[in-house]
Parts: sequence; structure tokens; C-alpha cells
Amino acid sequence: MSRAKTRASDRSITTGSDFLHLTIADAPPGGRADWLAARLRQALADGRVPVGGRLPATRLLAADLGVSRGVVTEAYQRLTEEGHITGRGRAGTVVVAAPPAPATPTPAPAAAPAPGALFPPAPGSDIFDAVRAASATIDLTPGVPDLTAFPRADWLRAERTVLAHLAAADFGYGDPCGTPALRRAVAAWLARSRGIAVDPVEVIIVAGVSQALGLLAQVLGAAGIDRIAVEDPGSLGVRQHLNNWRVDTPPVAVDDAGLRVDELAASGVPAVMLTPAHQFPTGVVLDGDRRRQLVDWARAGGLIIEDDYDAEHRYDRPPVPALRGLLPEQVFYAGSVSKLLAPALRVGWLLVPARYREAVVAAKRNADLGNAVLPQLVLAELMTSGALERHLRLLRRRHIQRRDAMITALARHLPGATVHGAAAGLHLMITLDGELADGELAAATLARGVKVQPLSWHCQRPYRPGLVLGYAARTATEIEEGVATIAAALRSG
Amino acid sequence: MSRAKTRASDRSITTGSDFLHLTIADAPPGGRADWLAARLRQALADGRVPVGGRLPATRLLAADLGVSRGVVTEAYQRLTEEGHITGRGRAGTVVVAAPPAPATPTPAPAAAPAPGALFPPAPGSDIFDAVRAASATIDLTPGVPDLTAFPRADWLRAERTVLAHLAAADFGYGDPCGTPALRRAVAAWLARSRGIAVDPVEVIIVAGVSQALGLLAQVLGAAGIDRIAVEDPGSLGVRQHLNNWRVDTPPVAVDDAGLRVDELAASGVPAVMLTPAHQFPTGVVLDGDRRRQLVDWARAGGLIIEDDYDAEHRYDRPPVPALRGLLPEQVFYAGSVSKLLAPALRVGWLLVPARYREAVVAAKRNADLGNAVLPQLVLAELMTSGALERHLRLLRRRHIQRRDAMITALARHLPGATVHGAAAGLHLMITLDGELADGELAAATLARGVKVQPLSWHCQRPYRPGLVLGYAARTATEIEEGVATIAAALRSG
Repeated sequence: MSRAKTRASDRSITTGSDFLHLTIADAPPGGRADWLAARLRQALADGRVPVGGRLPATRLLAADLGVSRGVVTEAYQRLTEEGHITGRGRAGTVVVAAPPAPATPTPAPAAAPAPGALFPPAPGSDIFDAVRAASATIDLTPGVPDLTAFPRADWLRAERTVLAHLAAADFGYGDPCGTPALRRAVAAWLARSRGIAVDPVEVIIVAGVSQALGLLAQVLGAAGIDRIAVEDPGSLGVRQHLNNWRVDTPPVAVDDAGLRVDELAASGVPAVMLTPAHQFPTGVVLDGDRRRQLVDWARAGGLIIEDDYDAEHRYDRPPVPALRGLLPEQVFYAGSVSKLLAPALRVGWLLVPARYREAVVAAKRNADLGNAVLPQLVLAELMTSGALERHLRLLRRRHIQRRDAMITALARHLPGATVHGAAAGLHLMITLDGELADGELAAATLARGVKVQPLSWHCQRPYRPGLVLGYAARTATEIEEGVATIAAALRSG
Repeated sequence: MSRAKTRASDRSITTGSDFLHLTIADAPPGGRADWLAARLRQALADGRVPVGGRLPATRLLAADLGVSRGVVTEAYQRLTEEGHITGRGRAGTVVVAAPPAPATPTPAPAAAPAPGALFPPAPGSDIFDAVRAASATIDLTPGVPDLTAFPRADWLRAERTVLAHLAAADFGYGDPCGTPALRRAVAAWLARSRGIAVDPVEVIIVAGVSQALGLLAQVLGAAGIDRIAVEDPGSLGVRQHLNNWRVDTPPVAVDDAGLRVDELAASGVPAVMLTPAHQFPTGVVLDGDRRRQLVDWARAGGLIIEDDYDAEHRYDRPPVPALRGLLPEQVFYAGSVSKLLAPALRVGWLLVPARYREAVVAAKRNADLGNAVLPQLVLAELMTSGALERHLRLLRRRHIQRRDAMITALARHLPGATVHGAAAGLHLMITLDGELADGELAAATLARGVKVQPLSWHCQRPYRPGLVLGYAARTATEIEEGVATIAAALRSG
């Protein structure tokens, strides 16, 4: 290469992030410091460098622009004297105040709506985000484990191990089905804890059960299946999610023995999504007769989507093997770490009948080219080292105490309520007598600082009024106070 | 609660992962050790506990089953004497050999196809996975930075900081648009390095540009826009991705000044996807006139999807500001860390015109409920601490040396080749004279152990034969050897 080109390269290599796109050629000869100061003032004014933001080191910016360091130092000095920036030693030069600028209207974050507005009879897809955004002193929203127990030290240790051994090529694009290490670990986990024997190559790593449902909706839709029966009562979130993927979700009743398979068969719907190990929200376990009926229905051609969302959390009853173990060619199986570790990890797994595998893999590739690699490998490390099982034992111990605390509090403050599904899971359901509108009760409870979900959210057809109460993430004291608040809201209603 | 129930709870809380779903009630009285040994033998035989897998500590399993520890110890002793398991001190009891079992056929991982089969004229959506799976000694596939430079120590340090300060609630479900910290960091990054002034609340965090395209395809499709013009030559992957989301991708020619805006206008297509800062694969920069023409076209109602895929990597030319900075209401802007850090992180960002924002957020929620939180916060830490800019400077220094090494090697081994787009990016393009079929050249080159992409992959209409060569991820020696191999394959062809 020519000497000139080499110099150009050498100069450009320190260009950092093309700071503000400054090009010294625009500067008037002799007025470079003024010019630079003016450009910087403008950048501060229009927020391109926000208050709290850092300016490049004078050495770097000087090299970027191909000017003497003195020019940059002088420009920085002007802004310092004007009180816009300040030197913070190793923190570099920091913006402390922006010059006045023509105010540009910026969309303010949506203000939290009034509690009443949060519990409409037919909530929209953004309802969970809206409720999450609402402020409350005690959150009894179901669906999360004790997040204070997240094994931060184990996670960091596993991440160190992963980063120490990872091959550089593994930072590139990978298999859309997931990393082999995690697929092996998940297969072993499912074999040991859920009675499912599966070859690791059949495991598809996904971004949680919600993504799994989206992928299945696309694949089944393409196969002409645009109706998936769901449990009633059953998860509002699951129903909304499937509907958003243009899948109809006709309701099938759930009674004390689980899904009414006779109703399913009579409906003629080709596929069903259910939670057999611990039905959401009722907590019912699909009993032996119903399992046999459902297996017969599937053997006759029915497709089952098994959401094994909190099967590992059982307290006073024997384990319930997954349906997938019995009917690998008729059952789609979805699980995740959302209830084992944290929803924020967005990692789950999906098993599909062989004939649908290629289409599901293609859908996952189209979705995002596959999950991020580092968290997969960290999770594999936690699963194989035994750290995840230790964590699960710890969670169970805490969850049982909290479950018991909630049952005690309900007996004290809401003796009229009937408690359902407390033998497992992260939540329980209560039903209440009378003509009560549980959406209004949830709103009144939130107005008193406690978040709960109305049972009616999760019902497509008329059902008893009630509430779905998560206990796993709250302390016994919070649970006691939360339940007392529900009772107070109920009395005042 | 009743004493009985409490005991049940106490016993069940140590149940670990419901190991093998063993229920002691099934055991014959007096024969519990035999029964347990038989169950374990079966589990080893059918692979539910794989070789290398661990058995629970005797204390835990005894508590799980509600039997004396002696029963478990005796069962383990039998399997130890049979040579199936062994005690490994702190590692616990490990499976070292499985008893014979009826062999179950497991799908073998697909064997890598022959090089010839890998470069068909019309490759399918799985072509990139197939090529990735093919073995090669030198990989000149374009699109990845120097992955050996990934800042592992910085990443781990940032992760420690994040885990030390994260609130427990942040491990729960979050904002589908991403964590505020990363959205602020990205907004500041875009302002400083790409001349885009954007409010952090407008930044949507996505799982890479590929997910961004899928979200936009869904939203624009719902708005009646099912055709998006693309550059020709232009990325095969982008075209396949949009087609998979049921969007037509009519070609618009690219010449030495960039996209032929006159052709775009004549086509009547309402939207265009392009790479203005460094066109893929040609490396052309959209020049001033064309930018003005494109801006006029957009002001008249045209929609632009700006893929800013490697804008930060420029060497011998001034920075090119993003189109988004000029036309925030007509330009969708997508970027990611795939070329800055690693594709395996699957993190990117998307800016959309205000009128499309709500629909895009809903699409992201339906896709996966939002990106995982920990990697977002780690990335935000790297962006705000300056570590990412340091890393980018390091990458530039290496990439320039490798770019120069490739130019030198091409001059030596392929003097007849014309080199395009070497002033920026992670790859360059060469075109060759004559009637050559570049797919066959790529196949012949892979047969000699070197992966390259045929230019024809990225062309919808007849174009000069050529190759797209990535240099950023390879050493000067590998580059020299790889180019020499291409030349040898060309001579032998």
C-alpha cells in the first residue's frame, strides 16, 4: 500500500466511535478550538451527548481529528468554564449540564393508568405490561418463583468457567436449535426429573414457552391447524398469545379431575394445549382416568401441546410424569427456566413430534437465528454441576413455607374463600361466594397497594368469581399483609 | 395445617428433581434395596441417567423416598460391584457404564454434504447452517469480526457488576422493548457514533437484525405492504429472511454510486431495505446525489429500512451519517452488536417511525416477551464504561491489517481479480473475468479446505462472477493461504 494510504489507516484506527462525525476539514484555519467548542456545545444542546455522558479523552479525539492535543484541550477548557462539562479523573470528561436548546417534544413514558382501568372484562395483549408498570407495595401476581433466591454467585462462577473454555468460533452464528451442551443437559434433566427419554438432538432451545407457542402456531397454521383447544379456566396469557398468532382457542372445561376430555373429543378440535401436571390457574392434576382418555384421543390423531410450566414445584403429592413420555409422536412438550430460575433469562426448551421437527426448526431460525450462546452454556453448566438441583431444593423449602403462610392468612382473613391447587406450584387460586365482580375486587385491592389477578381474566365462560394469588416470590409477612388487604378491599366493596 | 400434612411437606421438600419418579410404595416390603437397585439398573440401561451422569447423594435420595439411608447405600453398593457406578468423592456417585439395553435407534446428526452440493444456484434457507456445518481449515465466510478479540474479561467484570446491583424484581418478566439501561446506552451510542438523536424510550431492543426484519415484515404486511425492494447484488440471507416472512423482494440495481434510486422509483415498490454506509456485498457507499434522490423518494412517502450492519468499521474514508438521522418518520433503523462484539450475543436495536411503534412493540412481545435481561445490562455496562469503544478501536487496528493482508494476497495470487469495497467493513468482494460459474469455484475451494461465498448467491439477476471474502476473523497467514487456495482452485477449474 502507498505511504499516504498507510498514514490514513493509522490515523483512522483510533477513530473510536466516529465521535459526533466531526471532520476537521470543516474548521476554519486558525479557529479550530472555537470550531470544536461550538460543535461540542451544539451536541450537548441537542442531547447527542447527554448529561452524564462522557467526552473522548483529549489524546484520542486529537488523534481522531488529526489536530494537536492542545486544540482539544482548549475546546474542553471553554466548556468547562461554561459549566457544561467537568473532568472526573479516571472517569474522563463528563457532561454535567446542557446548554439551552430548542425544546424537542419527547414522548413521555406512559403514565400508569388508574387501578380500575387495569382490570377490564376483556383485557388486551398489553395488560400484563400495564399491570407490571402499576406501582404496588405488595405484588401477588402469580407465575414467578422467589427471585431473591436467584443463584447469582453460581451463575457468575459458571459464566467464568464458560468464558474460560469457550472456543472463539462459538461467538459466531450457531445452530438455531441451540448449543449441544445445553441440549444434552436438558435431555438429561427431562429424563431424570420428568420421566422423558429424549435424544439431545431432538431438543430445541427457545426463548421461553411463549416463543415455543408462537413457533407451534406458525407451523400448525401452515399445516392447516388454526384451532387449538385450551383449558377453561386457563391462562389468559397463553390464549392471547395464540390468538395473536391467528390461532382460535375454543374453551374446554376443567373440573376437579382436570380437562374434560369428553368435551374436547366432542368439539372436534384437532389440537389441545394443556397443563396436566398442575393446571393453571386451578392447580388441578389431570387424574388417571382423564390421562387415559386423553391418550386415547391423541392415539386417534389428536395433537397435544403440553405446557409443563411448573412441574418441578410439587409439595404434598407424588410426581406426575409428563404426557410426552407416553406419546412422543403426538405430544409437543414445552418447558422453561422461568419458574426454576428467572423469567428474565428467556430460555426454554421444546420437543416436537419428528414429522414437525424440520418446520419448527425453520420457524426458530426465522424468528431469531437461535438463542444467545453464553446464557445457554451457563445454564448447561448449572444443570450438569448440580447447582440447579440445589437451587430447586432451596426454592421448594421456601415456597412451602410461603404456601403455608398464605393458607394460614386466608383461613384468618378470608375464611369464606375456597382454596384450590395448593399442593404444588407457585400460586394458588381462591373462589368466593356470591355475585362478586372479581375484576373490581382486584382493582380495589390494587388501589390499596396489593397486586392480584382476577380469576375472570383466565375464564372464557362464566365461572365462580375468585383471585389467582402468587405466594412464591413474597415473604410470609408480605403474604399476611397482602391477604389482609384483599379482605379489607372485599369488606369495603 | 395437620401434623400429617406438615410431615408430608417436610419429606417432600428435599425431593430434588423427583429423581426417576421413584415411588417407594411400589417396592415389595423387605425388598426395598433390591427394588431400588433394579430401578436404577433400568434407568442406566435406557439412558435416563447417562454415562457420566450423577446419582443423588444417598442422604437426599433416602429422604426423597422416605426410606433409611441404608437402603439406598445398599442399592448403590450393588451397582458399584456390578461396575456401573463409582463414588467420586465430592463429585458424588457417577455412572461409568450402562447395563446392556434394547438398542433404540437415535437420529444421527446430519452428515456434512459434499462441497458441490453446498453451492446450488438457488440455495435454501438452511444453506448457511449447512455451510457452517461443513468442515474447513480456513473459513473466509463474510460477516463476523475477529471473535478471538471478544473482551471476555470485560464481559465477566461487567456481569459481576450487574449481578451485584440487580434488583430481584429485574429477574422477573420485563419490558418487551428492553431494559431502560441498555436503551439509554444505545441511544447515546447512536448519537455519538451514528449522528442519530433519539429518545431512549424509542429504542426497541431485539435479538439481532434478523429478528428486526421479521418484526417489520409482520407489521408492514399487516399494513398492506408485502413488497420490500432490496439491493441487487444484496444479502442472500436478508432476502431469504424477508421471503420466509411472506414479503416479496424485488431487486433494484446497485452501481458504483450505490442504489439506483431511479430504478426504485420506477418500480413503484413502497419500501426499500438497504445498507447505505457499506453496501453488502459490493462495499459501495451511497453517494451524495443518490442520498438526496433517496431522501426525496422517502419524503414523497417511500419507506426505508436502513440496515446499518457494519457502519462502525471504516478505515480509509470519512464517516457516513445514518439516513435515520435525516428522516426519522420514514426510516426504520436496525443495528446490532453482531459485528461489534459477536453474533452469538443475539442483541440488536430497532428504531421505527412513531406511527408504527405500537405495532412493532406488540410484534416483539408476541415473538418472545423481550430479550433476556442479564446480557442487556452487561452490554449497557460495556457501552457506558467505554469498554466497547476500546474494543472497537482494537478491532479496527486488527481489521485494517487483515484487510491489507488480503489485498496483498489477492494482488499476488489473483492479479486478474477486481477488488471492491475494501475501504470499510469486515469483508471485500472480488469479481472475475470470463464465463466462470462462481458456485463451482466456491465448491472447488471448499474441497481444498477453504470456505468462501460465491457472489452469485447474493445476486437476483445476472451479474459478474465473483466471491465475497471475509478477512476480519482470520489471521494474515490464514488469509494468505486461503487466497492462494482460491487461486489454485481457479487454475484447476
